[in-house]
Amino acid sequence: MSDKPAGQRRDLKALLAQEAGKLPQPERRAFLANGLTLAGGAMLGSATSAAAANLPPEVPPWTRSVGRGVVTVPYGMPSRYEQDIVRRTVPWLTASAISSISFTPLHRLKGIITPNGLVFERYHGGVPEIDPAEHRLMVHGLVDRPLIFTMDDLMRFPSVSVIRFIECPANGGMEWRGAQMEALQFTHGMLSCCEWTGVPLATLLQEVGVSAEAKWLLAEGADGSGMSRSIPLEKALDDSIVVYAQNGEMLRPEQGYPLRLLNPGWEGNTSVKWLRRLELGDAAWYHREETSKYTDLMPDGRARKFSWVQETNSVITFPCPENGLKQAGKYEIEGLAWSGRGRIKRVDVSVDGGVSWRSARVKGLILPKALTRFGLEWDWDGGPALLQSRAVDETGYVQPTLAQLREARGVESIYHKNAIHTWRVAEGGGVTNVQIE
Amino acid sequence: MSDKPAGQRRDLKALLAQEAGKLPQPERRAFLANGLTLAGGAMLGSATSAAAANLPPEVPPWTRSVGRGVVTVPYGMPSRYEQDIVRRTVPWLTASAISSISFTPLHRLKGIITPNGLVFERYHGGVPEIDPAEHRLMVHGLVDRPLIFTMDDLMRFPSVSVIRFIECPANGGMEWRGAQMEALQFTHGMLSCCEWTGVPLATLLQEVGVSAEAKWLLAEGADGSGMSRSIPLEKALDDSIVVYAQNGEMLRPEQGYPLRLLNPGWEGNTSVKWLRRLELGDAAWYHREETSKYTDLMPDGRARKFSWVQETNSVITFPCPENGLKQAGKYEIEGLAWSGRGRIKRVDVSVDGGVSWRSARVKGLILPKALTRFGLEWDWDGGPALLQSRAVDETGYVQPTLAQLREARGVESIYHKNAIHTWRVAEGGGVTNVQIE
Repeated sequence: MSDKPAGQRRDLKALLAQEAGKLPQPERRAFLANGLTLAGGAMLGSATSAAAANLPPEVPPWTRSVGRGVVTVPYGMPSRYEQDIVRRTVPWLTASAISSISFTPLHRLKGIITPNGLVFERYHGGVPEIDPAEHRLMVHGLVDRPLIFTMDDLMRFPSVSVIRFIECPANGGMEWRGAQMEALQFTHGMLSCCEWTGVPLATLLQEVGVSAEAKWLLAEGADGSGMSRSIPLEKALDDSIVVYAQNGEMLRPEQGYPLRLLNPGWEGNTSVKWLRRLELGDAAWYHREETSKYTDLMPDGRARKFSWVQETNSVITFPCPENGLKQAGKYEIEGLAWSGRGRIKRVDVSVDGGVSWRSARVKGLILPKALTRFGLEWDWDGGPALLQSRAVDETGYVQPTLAQLREARGVESIYHKNAIHTWRVAEGGGVTNVQIE
Repeated sequence: MSDKPAGQRRDLKALLAQEAGKLPQPERRAFLANGLTLAGGAMLGSATSAAAANLPPEVPPWTRSVGRGVVTVPYGMPSRYEQDIVRRTVPWLTASAISSISFTPLHRLKGIITPNGLVFERYHGGVPEIDPAEHRLMVHGLVDRPLIFTMDDLMRFPSVSVIRFIECPANGGMEWRGAQMEALQFTHGMLSCCEWTGVPLATLLQEVGVSAEAKWLLAEGADGSGMSRSIPLEKALDDSIVVYAQNGEMLRPEQGYPLRLLNPGWEGNTSVKWLRRLELGDAAWYHREETSKYTDLMPDGRARKFSWVQETNSVITFPCPENGLKQAGKYEIEGLAWSGRGRIKRVDVSVDGGVSWRSARVKGLILPKALTRFGLEWDWDGGPALLQSRAVDETGYVQPTLAQLREARGVESIYHKNAIHTWRVAEGGGVTNVQIE
């Protein structure tokens, strides 16, 4: 081989045609002939036929020319072939675009990191454009020494970096009464996972000196809505972080630039963005956004409040309504699992609506309170199927069925719908959103 | 506290003024009074004086108004206050912008993930704009069944996701003879770290069936330069991945969209972008980009070739020439360490040019062949200092001094300069790039 590379590379068209002629017949499939254990072998049939049918007629134009040079794009963007992969809204969902939601395109994402440009948005008074030189964080109330910090002050403290998911508790909220949304982006897209960097809140609390009687903390944003939430001191001292960076760079404006709180594993709204004030107190504040919102009406007529933790959840990301199946054969069913209580321990997958289950393979890192990617090889026979995933976390919590969740919470809830989700695969490969009790 | 939130929130200006009046004197510093072990306490003096001097005169405009609504920006971008944080070039470094380099702004990044828009660029024929529907990967040569894959074919195989650094072996190449570049972005910015998703190359090789006599593999790009490198089969079967996604989304055009090779821990150029062809052979090809480039002239006049592994390296990212110190006091010296041989085991930091060393704290994940973030608290007395970091990896390899590296490699090298790097802090806090043998 090494003595004839030039010739091979010069006449690529001839080579491609020649290689196409050598393509094997389906009956010579490697995974059958060699007994390879990798199910990937099943894709051979597809590769063969695709190659025979779609062989490029000649060397493509991008190989016959030079491309753009450096620094045409100092801050890079996705390919124009990916321009449909964007955050999207559901216009009827909220009364105003300044107090609304955009959804992450989970159907096209891989791995566990959500790129910053696609992290879902939720805010209550629009995205403020804050000058970091003017921004201040005040820590006061039941403390020994109230203090006001500039961004420069905060960035001198020893920092920590963690990969954690963030999820709006309303994720899936449209699905409580029945299947509503025909897209993974809308059933589960208020969910993202990033590497966050900042100062442990415990560090700042040590700095101001917390009074013995302090039990709660109010976090307030500098946005027009003055978004605020009461946080128990135990959480603040456990793993809360005052964050200024996300996936390596400074926070994006819609994620709280230049400063936000991060309460790992908790309702996204408690991770107050554009953080300007932390007040220590002896009781919760019961502010607007913890009474008018972020509570759920239980069957007994009482409201469930301070429902902090995003419970164990999972969803199949391929196939899904946006990405159906094309032909019978082997595929990898893929999905995401997460728990606000810690690490994912196991994910089971069913292709028959929960009658039988197989354990999926976890792919990549298993981090606490982070998205966890799973995959299961599946030989689709071309017929109907009901796909489900069921996550179990390290505390032993098992993702509930919809019937179990309704039993506990009724049907008036908006938040915390973490029931097992079902995708129906139709003959022909189309995927729809259905509900199974 | 809980009985008066409304009043407090209504008259924020009065509250800020009132709280400012309560600010403590420097002699009441928490870390002195309480004996807190957190060095962060040292920043108190700064927070105090900053707050007293720069207290915002009134509620800022972004709190008195609403911001932009959702989906004004379907694909988000950084704040306009971060618009200087971009990839940059060194125009004199290469003859043409289509065969050149852009550098990652490491001086402003946190954690270990490099956001896709800031990943450094290196290419030999510009960035092609490839239609993924037209793109093909051919695997042929010494194989049982040559095959051509479409992107759809490849995305059906079981995938893996890993966080790995990628570095051009020319990183720091300007520094072999002496300190050249007065910016961290240019001394070390051909370095990034992402989560990569794709199909293990071993899976595809099992699919085609590798002949017994095959020992090498040629990877060739679909760009105008036809970039190609010979890869030993052992590496291909070990941890090489045919990658289509980066930090969750599909690869960026300048990173190989829609398909690239990833050889974790190895010279970036071996991770051939816009991958169109893999040929199995019994010997290396000695193509243009492994003879004219990516070899180093040794003192004995012979060329060092196939220098695959990016050796253990580290650099201090704060302070650095772009980010000096402002006033005496406590800081966190921060930096990055990495090794193409595996995990980082330890990072030592010196503030006196290597006379004495202290072990730094590793912050966040310690992953094989990934960037690893370290930090060390430092009480700067306001005088001159010589900052160095020295990484040790899990194989016991210790990052060499410049003298040790020159002893082994001479001074004619361009690539693989992983010597201990020195930043000089001047009285007043300015930082410059100096070399210490």
